[in-house]
Amino acid sequence: MKIGLDIMGGDYAPKATVLGAIEARKSLSPDQTLVLIGDEGVAKEILQQSNVSADLFEFVHTTEVIGMGEHPTKAIVQKPNASISVGFKMLKEGQIAAFASAGNTGAMLVGGMFSVKTIPGVVRPAMTTIVPKLKGGLGILLDVGANADCKPDNLLQFGVLGSLLAESVYGIENPRVALMNIGEEEEKGNMLYQATYPVMKDTNMFNFVGNIEGRDLFGDQFDIAVCDGFTGNVILKLAESFYVITLKKGLKDEFFDRFNYEQYGGSPILGLNAPVVVGHGISSPEAIKNMVLLSKNMVESNLIDKIKQAFH
Amino acid sequence: MKIGLDIMGGDYAPKATVLGAIEARKSLSPDQTLVLIGDEGVAKEILQQSNVSADLFEFVHTTEVIGMGEHPTKAIVQKPNASISVGFKMLKEGQIAAFASAGNTGAMLVGGMFSVKTIPGVVRPAMTTIVPKLKGGLGILLDVGANADCKPDNLLQFGVLGSLLAESVYGIENPRVALMNIGEEEEKGNMLYQATYPVMKDTNMFNFVGNIEGRDLFGDQFDIAVCDGFTGNVILKLAESFYVITLKKGLKDEFFDRFNYEQYGGSPILGLNAPVVVGHGISSPEAIKNMVLLSKNMVESNLIDKIKQAFH
Repeated sequence: MKIGLDIMGGDYAPKATVLGAIEARKSLSPDQTLVLIGDEGVAKEILQQSNVSADLFEFVHTTEVIGMGEHPTKAIVQKPNASISVGFKMLKEGQIAAFASAGNTGAMLVGGMFSVKTIPGVVRPAMTTIVPKLKGGLGILLDVGANADCKPDNLLQFGVLGSLLAESVYGIENPRVALMNIGEEEEKGNMLYQATYPVMKDTNMFNFVGNIEGRDLFGDQFDIAVCDGFTGNVILKLAESFYVITLKKGLKDEFFDRFNYEQYGGSPILGLNAPVVVGHGISSPEAIKNMVLLSKNMVESNLIDKIKQAFH
Repeated sequence: MKIGLDIMGGDYAPKATVLGAIEARKSLSPDQTLVLIGDEGVAKEILQQSNVSADLFEFVHTTEVIGMGEHPTKAIVQKPNASISVGFKMLKEGQIAAFASAGNTGAMLVGGMFSVKTIPGVVRPAMTTIVPKLKGGLGILLDVGANADCKPDNLLQFGVLGSLLAESVYGIENPRVALMNIGEEEEKGNMLYQATYPVMKDTNMFNFVGNIEGRDLFGDQFDIAVCDGFTGNVILKLAESFYVITLKKGLKDEFFDRFNYEQYGGSPILGLNAPVVVGHGISSPEAIKNMVLLSKNMVESNLIDKIKQAFH
């Protein structure tokens, strides 16, 4: 298995990405290869400085970089030699089994949809995030930003995608899907959520357990919380800000520690024809390592095949 | 000035409400009267137990209560003798200058719209909440649940309503209005927010400062954050859950202390023809006291007249 890593992506790239690759390599088996996509010379310098042999990796040299602030679609079209563009080209051609980057999120989404494309039957891919639970364990929240405007069909599909991720990668059996809403009762919510509830209630594609509210995000009632990408993105960034505040204030707690994005490695984009993971812009080497391992887990669990079957 | 207080509203009513009324009375001047609306006998018993003279208050006896879980519109129509219904009747007839309740939020909203009605020009009233800022001071978030579905016009009006509240009641000069969005750039957001940004940019009705994101909620960039009631309600409940978690974990911090809803007293419903405040269901006597004082401040600052002028 070959995993492609964009070493130019993220605020601290390429240093943090190459150091993360070194760490990830230690957890990979000999038949698993990490392909470093980006500036080969710079990567080899960092490896040398770290006294790590370049022979442990494969390299694909690229000459362009898509910046964090660039317009995704324009950048993907205008920079075919950027590390993200090359990564997706390799993913499409089967040269790598998964592609991970802590770079421009929009470019990762657009690049994925343009290259490997959306799985037939999936209307829109979704971005996910991990939510720590107060009593231990984790939940999955999606969509967190790929789709600012959604229809009931999108939310229904997010329930399927989230369930398969929870089962395959996180080993959660018969995962419970909840709608992130503004009240417990079926009739609560805006028009989108009011229309989605009956559709979810009637589905046999996943285990729907009803509505949850903002205050339930860290609770025990669900494994997957489904919402539109606007709501999910606001939730994600608000929750992150709480974690940052506890850090700044020096408040140490096991629960807050589990907000640390580093240990989750990144956000899978679900619904594409191949495993794609987007890392946090500020990804540290530890985060990069876990992003690579998450990509590996997505390949090993045959998540993409399972999603294809579900939407067949 | 007479302020009406629903003593039957809230999870700990009438005990907490009457005890709160006793506290509020101490901060009111002699020409300010607190009218206790609810079970007069029970109220007088609690006063007697507290060694407080019933002569300090006016009483309006009511025989029905609208429960926290009741359907707002049905309850308002079917229970004309409930404390909330009677309070709004008195507000409409000018017997009280403001009405406050920690009871059924939906019934307060519907009761307000049915009785004192929406100010001409205001399409939909909005519910507000106070947000503590990390560097001190506070911000206002609206709408937090009155309008699950919004149009750009609603959000524009929320900006006006929030600005007038910030200026009149909280003494914030030339308050800055931001859109709660999922990116800083003008083109970010779902269709609602994409359509709202240019309308806000062009308005001279308030001081628009652009988009903020979930992570900016406790930051310095704005005084009023405007969003639809679905998003605002999710934010409100998520932020509350963080406060509850810090409490449970015994984490003491000046910033987290300022999340305590008790000190803000409740959520004004803006856009009605009279001051109306809804308290948190779990309101303590301290919260009830501050809800009464907030109602008084809304009357004294002539907020309603200022809103009427703005929409004239």
